[in-house]
Amino acid sequence: MPEDVENQEETAPEVIELDALRAENEELIDTLQRLQADFDNYRKRAMRDQEALVARAGERIVKELLPVLDDLERALEAVESHEEAELEEGVKLVHRHLEQLLEREGLAPVETDGKFDPHVHEALLTQPSESDEGSVIEVLQKGYRLGDRVLRPARVVVAGPKEEPDGDAA
Amino acid sequence: MPEDVENQEETAPEVIELDALRAENEELIDTLQRLQADFDNYRKRAMRDQEALVARAGERIVKELLPVLDDLERALEAVESHEEAELEEGVKLVHRHLEQLLEREGLAPVETDGKFDPHVHEALLTQPSESDEGSVIEVLQKGYRLGDRVLRPARVVVAGPKEEPDGDAA
Repeated sequence: MPEDVENQEETAPEVIELDALRAENEELIDTLQRLQADFDNYRKRAMRDQEALVARAGERIVKELLPVLDDLERALEAVESHEEAELEEGVKLVHRHLEQLLEREGLAPVETDGKFDPHVHEALLTQPSESDEGSVIEVLQKGYRLGDRVLRPARVVVAGPKEEPDGDAA
Repeated sequence: MPEDVENQEETAPEVIELDALRAENEELIDTLQRLQADFDNYRKRAMRDQEALVARAGERIVKELLPVLDDLERALEAVESHEEAELEEGVKLVHRHLEQLLEREGLAPVETDGKFDPHVHEALLTQPSESDEGSVIEVLQKGYRLGDRVLRPARVVVAGPKEEPDGDAA
């Protein structure tokens, strides 16, 4: 038997497998490089998109605030010309507009009826009161939530223990 | 080595290459899978991050608007009690605060001195005027830019051709 043929017959399956593996290898490297490039591009785009999104989110609110600023400037003109009725109307209008704008953004006032709640209230004072102990008796600064987050707790005065009708000393 | 020496000698180079290729292949598949998983995770996280970023961008401005809302409500109380001086002071304060807030966001008024510029001005009227033809002679509504974008063009009156001192018929 010529050495060639013997050799060929013996190594044929391995050569075929080698070729297949080499081809597969090349394909894998190709796929890997393309995926890496896609990933890199995605990352770059995501970064640009985020900057644009943040800019746009701010821009949208700023744009909505322009009419509020307009109303305010009209109210200021009324100040200059001492048109009190117009000024009052103007201030009410500005307030309504700003309130509506913020409501659309998801802003809601914190409830202050009832018991003191440390999650949404901040107690600045405790005062003896005829109200139930631990209830909110006065709001010093309104609190607000945005969605389910407390943006600012309400600053409140809380009812302390009820005073005895005759007082301690009696 | 305990294996058939003759056999090993004959097939060694191909077997070694086969083993190397198989190992390389496995490694490539492994790398590919990990990269794919990283990519998927990155994509999911980027999506969540974007939502959070937009929410936070809005939240930041909303939070900054709370003191403006407070000032406005104090001004409204002055309306109720007809304390005109306080109301006027209040409106000026609200205006200053809102203006500063919007400036920090990058808002700037559109210039209206000089020639009409269709990029930043909207001409509502053309009027004969002593001013140079094509110059802005009155601002009906202020315009604003945010960074290099025009958020709202200034609505203006533009000077038409100068009237001849003696009139057309003279």
